[in-house]
Amino acid sequence: MSRFFSSRYAALTPYTPGEQPQDQDYLKLNTNESPFPPSPGVAAAVAAQCGKLQLYSDPQCTGLRRALAEHYGVKPANIMVGNGSDEVLDLAFCAFAGEERPLYFADVTYGFYPVFAAKNRLPFEVIPLKEDFTIDPADYFGKNGVTVIANPNAPTGLALGLDAIEAILKANPDGVLIVDEAYVDFGAESAAALLDRYDNLLVVRTFSKSRSMAGARLGFAIGCEALIADLETLRYSTNPYNVNRMTLAAGEAALAEDDYYMDNCRRIAAIRQDVAGQLEAMGWRVLPSKTNFLFAASPAMGGKAMYQALRQKGVLVRHFDAPRTRDFIRITIGDEAQMERFVNTVKEIEKEAAQ
Amino acid sequence: MSRFFSSRYAALTPYTPGEQPQDQDYLKLNTNESPFPPSPGVAAAVAAQCGKLQLYSDPQCTGLRRALAEHYGVKPANIMVGNGSDEVLDLAFCAFAGEERPLYFADVTYGFYPVFAAKNRLPFEVIPLKEDFTIDPADYFGKNGVTVIANPNAPTGLALGLDAIEAILKANPDGVLIVDEAYVDFGAESAAALLDRYDNLLVVRTFSKSRSMAGARLGFAIGCEALIADLETLRYSTNPYNVNRMTLAAGEAALAEDDYYMDNCRRIAAIRQDVAGQLEAMGWRVLPSKTNFLFAASPAMGGKAMYQALRQKGVLVRHFDAPRTRDFIRITIGDEAQMERFVNTVKEIEKEAAQ
Repeated sequence: MSRFFSSRYAALTPYTPGEQPQDQDYLKLNTNESPFPPSPGVAAAVAAQCGKLQLYSDPQCTGLRRALAEHYGVKPANIMVGNGSDEVLDLAFCAFAGEERPLYFADVTYGFYPVFAAKNRLPFEVIPLKEDFTIDPADYFGKNGVTVIANPNAPTGLALGLDAIEAILKANPDGVLIVDEAYVDFGAESAAALLDRYDNLLVVRTFSKSRSMAGARLGFAIGCEALIADLETLRYSTNPYNVNRMTLAAGEAALAEDDYYMDNCRRIAAIRQDVAGQLEAMGWRVLPSKTNFLFAASPAMGGKAMYQALRQKGVLVRHFDAPRTRDFIRITIGDEAQMERFVNTVKEIEKEAAQ
Repeated sequence: MSRFFSSRYAALTPYTPGEQPQDQDYLKLNTNESPFPPSPGVAAAVAAQCGKLQLYSDPQCTGLRRALAEHYGVKPANIMVGNGSDEVLDLAFCAFAGEERPLYFADVTYGFYPVFAAKNRLPFEVIPLKEDFTIDPADYFGKNGVTVIANPNAPTGLALGLDAIEAILKANPDGVLIVDEAYVDFGAESAAALLDRYDNLLVVRTFSKSRSMAGARLGFAIGCEALIADLETLRYSTNPYNVNRMTLAAGEAALAEDDYYMDNCRRIAAIRQDVAGQLEAMGWRVLPSKTNFLFAASPAMGGKAMYQALRQKGVLVRHFDAPRTRDFIRITIGDEAQMERFVNTVKEIEKEAAQ
C-alpha cells in the first residue's frame, strides 16, 4: 500500500479469482469456463472489426442491444451492456443500494458481492442459507433494500423456482431484486419471464458460461426502462465505451447461432448428471446442480485435501476455505473425456488415501 | 430516473462523448481517432484468440505488462492495465483522492475529470488556465492533493514541458500528480522519464489515439510499485478480468510493430502543421498543438455556427459550448485527403457566410 492510498480502502480485501495458470499443464475445472469454443460465426465477426479498431466502439451498443432485445422479447431500452457481468453488478449495486437501501445476500454465494459492497462502501447484511444450502425466500421478505440472489447459486449449484423469486419481489415493493443468472442456461428458470410485471426486478446475465465467451468479457442487464436508464447514467459517468468493438460483434454473432450454445448447455447438463451419479455411487455428497459445475464432498477427505491432491495430479478445481464450504470442492463440468479423467483421478486419490 | 436510483446520484450529469453516428455518411473528425488502421500483426494476434474465448483472460495481463515494461524501460510491477484509460483514470481518482486529498484540475481540460469526481463523490477544485490557455505550474504548488494534468491538454492541444511537470511534483511531495498522456506521442515529452525519481507520479496512457485502437479499449498506468499496487487492489475489487483476451493480444502485437505507429504519428503531426498553416493563412486563431487535433477559431463565425455548418456538409468536428471554448472547434487530424476536404469545406462555408 502506498502512503497515498485513500483511507477509505484501508480495510478492503479484493476478490480472489480462481487460479488462471498461463501454461497448458492443467485440466482446468476451476473457473466454470465452457469446454467448447465459441460458434463458427464469432471468429468471422471479430475479424471484420480488426480493420476498424481505430474507431471507437458504439457507446450505445445499438446492434447488440437490438439483438438481445429480440432474443429476450424486450426492447433495446430494457437492456444495458457491460464489460462482463461483474461490471454490470458493480454498477447496479452502486445505482440502487446505499443508506436508504442496504444490500442483502446469502452467506454462501458469489464471493464478489461483499467485495463490491465494501469497495463502494455500501451497507450490507449477510443472510445465511438454510442448513441444506437452500434459500428461504421468507428471509428476504419486507427488507425493501437491494436483494441479490445468484440463481442458480454459486458455488452450491442450487436453483430457486420462479414462484420463490416472485414471492420475494411481491414482498419488497420498495426494494430492488437483482437476480444474477450467470448459470441459468444450464437448467434453471429465468426471472426474465417476470419482467413485464415488476419494475423492481433486474436480471443480470453473462456470455461467459453458456455462451463460451469468458475471455471476451460480455454481460448485460434486463430490466424496466427506468432501472436501465439509471444504469446507463452510471455507465456514462464511468466508461461509456465500456465494451470494445470485437466483443460487441462477437456477442451479436453468438446470438445468431444460439442453437449451438443451447445444444452445448444440454450436453454439459447431461455430463453433469452422469458425473454426479458416479460421485454419489462413490459415496460423495453432491448437491443437485442446475449449473455447469458440481459442489460435492468426498467421504474420504476434506475439500482442501482433495483440492490439493487433484492439483498435484494436474487437475484444478476450486476450494472455498470457509466454515460451511470447506468439506466441498467445486468442479466445473468439462467435456466427456475431461470428466472421465477427473473421475479416474479422484478414484486414484481415494485409493491412495485408503492405503 | 427510477424511484430506486440512489440519492447520491441525483445531481450526477454523465459525460457526453462525441457523436458516434453508426452510418458512414460523415467525415469523422470529432473524437480524435486515428485515420489509420492497426498494424498488420494485430488482426493475426486477435484471430489466434478467437478459438480460446471460452477461457477467461489473464487477470494479471502478464504478457502485455511484460511487453509494456520492456517498451518503457520499467518493470511489470510498474504497470497497471485498464479497459481504456478512462477506467484507469476512474480507479486512480478513487485510489488517491478523497477528503484527505482533493482533486485539482484545469477548467478547460478533459471533460470526464469532473464527472469521475462527481460520480465518486470526491472533492475537487477547478483551476483556470491562463488567458492564453496555458497552465501556470505555480497554480498547483503546495496543494498536496491529487493534481490531474492532461499533457498535452485537450481540447487545447497545448503541451507543458517536463521542467514544469517536475516543478509540480517537487512542490507537492505529499500529493499525487496524475499526468494523462493520451496525446503525448504526437509531439510532447512524456513524464515517464521522471518516474525513477518521484514516487508521487502516475503516468496514464492509452492505445486509442497514437496506436489506432480506440475500438479495442486499452489504457495503462505507469508508476512506482506502491501506487500500482493500490490500483491493482481496486481493480481486483471491481473487475479483475477487465481487459479481454483479444485486446490483450492486440496490444502486445501493436507494441511489436511500434515503428508503424510512430511513423503514423509523425505523418499526422506533419498534416497537422500543414492544416494549421492553412487555417492561419485564412485568418483563424489556431492554438499550437502537440496532439492529433487542432483547437481553432474562425474569424467568420463562432464555434457553434462553424460546427453546425460543417455538420450540414457532412464533416463532424467537436464544439464545446462553454464560455472559454465557444469560439473554437476541435478538429481531429485525419489523413491528407480528409484534411483537404475539411479545409475546402471550411472555405466554402466562409465564402457562403460572406455573401
